[in-house]
Order: sequence, then structure tokens, then C-alpha cells
Amino acid sequence: MTAPQVVPAVPVPAGLERFSFNQATAQHWPLEEVVAGCAGAGVPGIGLWREPVGEYGVQRAARLVRAAGLTVTSLCRGGFFTTDDWRTENLRAIEEAATLDCPVLVLVAGGLPAGSRDLDGARNRVADAIAELAPHAAAAGVTLAIEPLHPMFCSDRCVIATLGQALDIAERFDPGTVGVVVDAYHVWWDDTVYHQIARAGDRIAAFQVCDWITPLPEGVLLGRGLPGEGCIDLRRLRTAVDAAGYTGPIEVEVFHAGTWARPGPEVLADSVHGYLEHVL
Amino acid sequence: MTAPQVVPAVPVPAGLERFSFNQATAQHWPLEEVVAGCAGAGVPGIGLWREPVGEYGVQRAARLVRAAGLTVTSLCRGGFFTTDDWRTENLRAIEEAATLDCPVLVLVAGGLPAGSRDLDGARNRVADAIAELAPHAAAAGVTLAIEPLHPMFCSDRCVIATLGQALDIAERFDPGTVGVVVDAYHVWWDDTVYHQIARAGDRIAAFQVCDWITPLPEGVLLGRGLPGEGCIDLRRLRTAVDAAGYTGPIEVEVFHAGTWARPGPEVLADSVHGYLEHVL
Repeated sequence: MTAPQVVPAVPVPAGLERFSFNQATAQHWPLEEVVAGCAGAGVPGIGLWREPVGEYGVQRAARLVRAAGLTVTSLCRGGFFTTDDWRTENLRAIEEAATLDCPVLVLVAGGLPAGSRDLDGARNRVADAIAELAPHAAAAGVTLAIEPLHPMFCSDRCVIATLGQALDIAERFDPGTVGVVVDAYHVWWDDTVYHQIARAGDRIAAFQVCDWITPLPEGVLLGRGLPGEGCIDLRRLRTAVDAAGYTGPIEVEVFHAGTWARPGPEVLADSVHGYLEHVL
Repeated sequence: MTAPQVVPAVPVPAGLERFSFNQATAQHWPLEEVVAGCAGAGVPGIGLWREPVGEYGVQRAARLVRAAGLTVTSLCRGGFFTTDDWRTENLRAIEEAATLDCPVLVLVAGGLPAGSRDLDGARNRVADAIAELAPHAAAAGVTLAIEPLHPMFCSDRCVIATLGQALDIAERFDPGTVGVVVDAYHVWWDDTVYHQIARAGDRIAAFQVCDWITPLPEGVLLGRGLPGEGCIDLRRLRTAVDAAGYTGPIEVEVFHAGTWARPGPEVLADSVHGYLEHVL
């Protein structure tokens, strides 16, 4: 197997020092192309997803991004603790993050089991599962980052619905082992969010941005806007995250059917533009 | 003008003493028919909406429900404080509630003004507007009931997204003048909701129930289930509301395109059934 071609290093353009492009923003851009696109644009970081990485091969993907001079800023995602194989899948995800030299594994907790109305029970199981995974993550040098999802996903994707809830769990562990994701899309509506960001401090393991636009589409998953297209005060959130002590990457992560239908390079360029204009 | 025909009184069936049918649950059932349907089924209360009541005539609607022996448990809705004519519209809504002998006017705050990202500003304007309306409501004997809406409506319908936020505003006023609505659909996901219900105490001016089902439809407004169809622990919420001291009506209020397409009497019967099985 030959090593991937090394993409010539491009100096990081001013303002993009912390910028990371989450590959899900251009869902249909093949891994080799998105990596080349980011490297060619001087983008320093990339957020990856387990499915495309797994299809490409984890070791091979690790070599690809390394050769391109990119840093993997997060791997999405572990979690879904209500599935039968959550333990196996999450241990595998920790290993994949380590292979990718990725310091952060994003955890999306999962929703209620089918037919259940026991929200407290589901939430307790999330905390128990993270306690079980934490030693494995610590051994692998990977931070488990609990991502609260917007409450509209509470029943079917993530019973952790606020940053406060995520911190209630994370604070039981060492900050290097269990942290939180602050994703603007999921937390912007919360009148306690600035208090919770300050509380989070060095627990902030990842910061992701996109924008809130309406009407929401059926299923509400693919309704996110690029930074600047919606009503979230992204700069205020970024400033608060910085003030809490976070100095890490800022990922643009957008799910939108219309955006996904566009050519990857255009989506990357618009993500950079939105970041510079509305986040930085 | 002749008075509407008095519907023969039907004894309230066991278990329905606090039941109220919100007319929006059977959106296309004409007012005279839904009133007759409720009275004929022994349902003691009805929740009304300003639009159909206005079309029928407010005084005439008041006579209709009175003749049927029904209590109007709430009027939806005032609020939308970001519209230009909010003051006129809300003063009119207070007057309409008084005319209907309805003790509760539900307030839905409204979303962000077009193009705005100033969520704090919008929230402050809600509090200011309620302060301005409160003396008028007190004079009319109508309680203004602030309804927190699910955070998925924060940008376009209601910047008040949690019960805690609603109480932060309500607590500035006399409990008889400004209270809150506890609507299961909007608050069930909140890990602080049981604490906030206990805090609310005699501020609970209305309690509404329906169920959370997925996938949410486009626009997310018409995705509510009848009690029992979804994942909300309605009985636990009802028990908490009771424990907080609330002894008032319990309204079934469902917005769902499929439910709206069905004959009103069937929807009423299913609402009663869901209430008896999953709420009481």
C-alpha cells in the first residue's frame, strides 16, 4: 500500500488559525477530495465522521489527513447508549479517534428506547455508560465530549438536551477525560447558556457553529444554515467560549439538503466566509 | 337575535370533572358543533381560540357556550409582542376573554423580529409588554398566562422557551394577574421541569396535554399526538402539577394534520379516552 501523496503545505490564511471544516457540511464530498480541498485552501483542521472514515479505512484515512498536514479536530460520533451494541461500538470509536490522532470523540447520547416514557432512566443510563467508557478513553488519550442536542431531538436522538445537563454528567470525571461540545445550533435558545459556558471552562472539548433557519424541514435534521444565514448570535457565543478559556478549533458543521447538493469546494468557501464574517 | 338553543345538560362522566377540550384539537369542527359535541358528551370545559370565536362573534359565542352549560377554560391567544399592533390586539384579547367569562388568556410571546439576533432584547420586550398589559388584565379579571413554547419555536413563535423563564417574568406580578401555562408538549424534555412546576405553585393558570411523536413534520407545528400516542409521561406531569396545588381544568390540545382531517366527534372521543387512560 503506498502512502497518499503529500499535498504541498499552504500557509493558513489570516483568521483561519482555529477554523475546522466538519466533513458533514459537504456530506457528499469524498474523503480524499475534502481533505485535498481543505489542505489546498490552507484550512488547518477537519472534523470527521466514523461512517466515511470506516468506508475509506481508518488507518488509511489517518495517513491521508496526516500527509495533507491537517489536524483531525473531532470524530463524530460515539454514544447512542440505548442500542444493544453501544459498548462495542463506543470502544471501537475511541480506538478510531486514537488512530486518527483525534483528541475528541463526540458523544450523542441517543433517545428513549422504543415505547419508553422513562426519560430519567434513559438519562441515568447515559451517565452509567460514560462511567464505563471513561477509563478506556483515558487510556487512549481521547476526550469523550458529551454533546447536548437541541430539545427537539430529545426523544429520538439525544436525551441530553442542555449544556447544564451535559456538565452535570461531565463534572463527575477528570476534565481531560470527559468534556462537552458547545454546538451553537443546539444551545443558542437557552437563557442559561452563557452561565453554563462560563461554568464549563476547561470542560469545553469542542465548539461547533452553524445557524438556525426556519421553517424546519420534515424530521428537522437537515435544516441548518451556514454561519450568517440565520438568527444565532454566533460571535457572542464564540466570545463567551473564548472567555471561558477555550482556545481550540472552531468547527463549521452544517446539515442541510440544499448545501449537500452543492459542490464541496463552494460549500467550503462559503463556510470560511461565514466564519470570518459572523464567528470570528 | 335569538338565544342559542340550550343543550340538555348531561351529567359529567366519572373522571371527566377537570377535562377540557381545546377546540384546536378538532380544528375544522365548527364552533356550534364542537360546543354541542362537548355538551352532549358531558364534557365540562372547552378551550377556545380567538379566530373562530371572532368569526362567530364574541358575544354570540359567549351566549352559545353559556347556554350549553360549558365553561371556557382558556382563550388562545394573546402575545406576539414583536408585531406592530401587539398593544391593540392584546387589549382586545383581554376584553374577549372577559366577555367569554374565560379566566385565562394564553400569551405566546412571539419570536425574534425579522433579521434580528438579539434574543435578550426580544425577551426583555416581552416582560415590558406584560407589565403594560397587567393592569388591564387585573381590571378585567383575566389572568395573563405566559406559555413557554418548545425551544424549536424560539426564533419564530416564542422567545420564552422554558417554564423557568416564564416564571422569571410572572413572579414580578400578582399571581392572580400573571401566571404560566404548563403544556406537556413544550416542557416534557426539560430536566428542571419538576422543580419548576413545584416553584410555579399557584402561578399555574392552565395545564394542557398532548403527546410527543416523531418524525416532526415540516414546520414542526402540526406534529402533536393525542395523549398516549407518544413518549411523554403525562401522568407524572399531571401528578406534579396537582402536587403544586393546581386544581383547575386539564385541556387536551393537539395540533396534527391527520387528527384535523378526522370527524370532530371521533377526535373528542379519542381525546377523552387518551385523557382517562394516560393523564388521569
